[in-house]
Amino acid sequence: MCQLMGMNCNAPTDVTFSFRGFARRGGATSDHADGWGIAFFEGDGSGDDRGVRHFVDHQPACQSPVAELISRYPIKSRNVIAHIRKATQGRVALENCHPFVRELWGRYWVFAHNGNLADFSPRLHANFRPVGHTDSERAFCWIMQELAKSHADVPSVQELSITLRELAAQVAPHGTFNFLLSNGQALWAHASSKAGSPILYYVERKHPFAHATLSDEDVSVNFADQTQPTDRIAVVVTAPLTTNETWTAFAPGELKVFEDGMLVEA
Amino acid sequence: MCQLMGMNCNAPTDVTFSFRGFARRGGATSDHADGWGIAFFEGDGSGDDRGVRHFVDHQPACQSPVAELISRYPIKSRNVIAHIRKATQGRVALENCHPFVRELWGRYWVFAHNGNLADFSPRLHANFRPVGHTDSERAFCWIMQELAKSHADVPSVQELSITLRELAAQVAPHGTFNFLLSNGQALWAHASSKAGSPILYYVERKHPFAHATLSDEDVSVNFADQTQPTDRIAVVVTAPLTTNETWTAFAPGELKVFEDGMLVEA
Repeated sequence: MCQLMGMNCNAPTDVTFSFRGFARRGGATSDHADGWGIAFFEGDGSGDDRGVRHFVDHQPACQSPVAELISRYPIKSRNVIAHIRKATQGRVALENCHPFVRELWGRYWVFAHNGNLADFSPRLHANFRPVGHTDSERAFCWIMQELAKSHADVPSVQELSITLRELAAQVAPHGTFNFLLSNGQALWAHASSKAGSPILYYVERKHPFAHATLSDEDVSVNFADQTQPTDRIAVVVTAPLTTNETWTAFAPGELKVFEDGMLVEA
Repeated sequence: MCQLMGMNCNAPTDVTFSFRGFARRGGATSDHADGWGIAFFEGDGSGDDRGVRHFVDHQPACQSPVAELISRYPIKSRNVIAHIRKATQGRVALENCHPFVRELWGRYWVFAHNGNLADFSPRLHANFRPVGHTDSERAFCWIMQELAKSHADVPSVQELSITLRELAAQVAPHGTFNFLLSNGQALWAHASSKAGSPILYYVERKHPFAHATLSDEDVSVNFADQTQPTDRIAVVVTAPLTTNETWTAFAPGELKVFEDGMLVEA
């Protein structure tokens, strides 16, 4: 099983806070020790974030020099997806580390999955094929293939959400299917529909951000010093990162959409 | 105009040596200051290197914290492509930084280009579209599109070389078209066919590696300490990195193929 973290913000936001707790999970405080990854979109300030930075490592996050860089690197992003992997399918190798990235309609798409899919071998007849050997990348390729068939170009967030909801429902019966997806415009999060499976939680933060205590470390960060009064952030995780905020659980099988730092109806 | 460096080795090789000189070029010792990038394949020792690490930055390499990490990071790879960008088309943005990465036939493909292509707007009707706004990414997408039409699955290095030679000849009349391409199995390098344009150079190194002096820094590295007697490395660049080795210039319009650290007939 794996840990997921997604962030969606209305302004480029420093994510060092949340990732520090998350990175600590990679081997130090839990058994999620088979690699990790983070991808985040970066734009030029015009609001259309097309560039992606993608860092993956098959070393545990707590031993990885790249994770060490990330914990010090001033990430400024509106859409972030991070993942700590515990191998269930596919050996411990770089090509099996989430998040995965593909291009469609001239945009990059970033995907990470938590869970295990059994007997999931969809027909991949089109233009997205897995490089590694995970059920997760197979599911991502199938979703991209079906999106490409359903729309001629990048659809609206609302239209895309409808299609994704239909597609996720077809994969979910195969097992635990918590996933995060972003194209730089929004963050889509799907919670597993299986009873007893881990689920997703989210929190919306608004200025002024309260002191937040990481559950994995005795560190406290005050966001208020760093943000503007208009700043909003939504954070989605498989296990709440902080102990002094109220995290809302997804309903089983639910797909939620976050845009401009808020949960939106879509 | 831009600087290119490619390395192809028969065993995973530490590239800190060559990249150190290369990274210094990003703003410190020349005018190539509009971003940089490096991508390298990593495998699990089976010889089939499918994983890719991809680092890009629109900050000059000499100021980039990611470049600083790379200069200290123990890269062990058999295929490396690096690029320093001087913007000719497309603004200075992350999505315009080389190398570019796409997936085809379940493998990642890495591409970097040196030069400027005029009036190059091929019809991109298939499944590879540029995310940024450079002539280079457009050329890469067109090459991937045409490769996908020419072969049903990953062809042999020889077959792929024949196709690439035909495709490169169609792009080259539009300007300076030095490029490097790798899928983790081989390194393809194409030199511009235009008279007066910068060209590519290559060198083959074999054990024992002699002391090599970087042309950009007063640093000397002895590879012999770090390598096995069977190690071979081929390095391809737009401007020779070392002053005490013999670099061979490509012929105009030539496509060369490097496999297992050697120039091969293909």
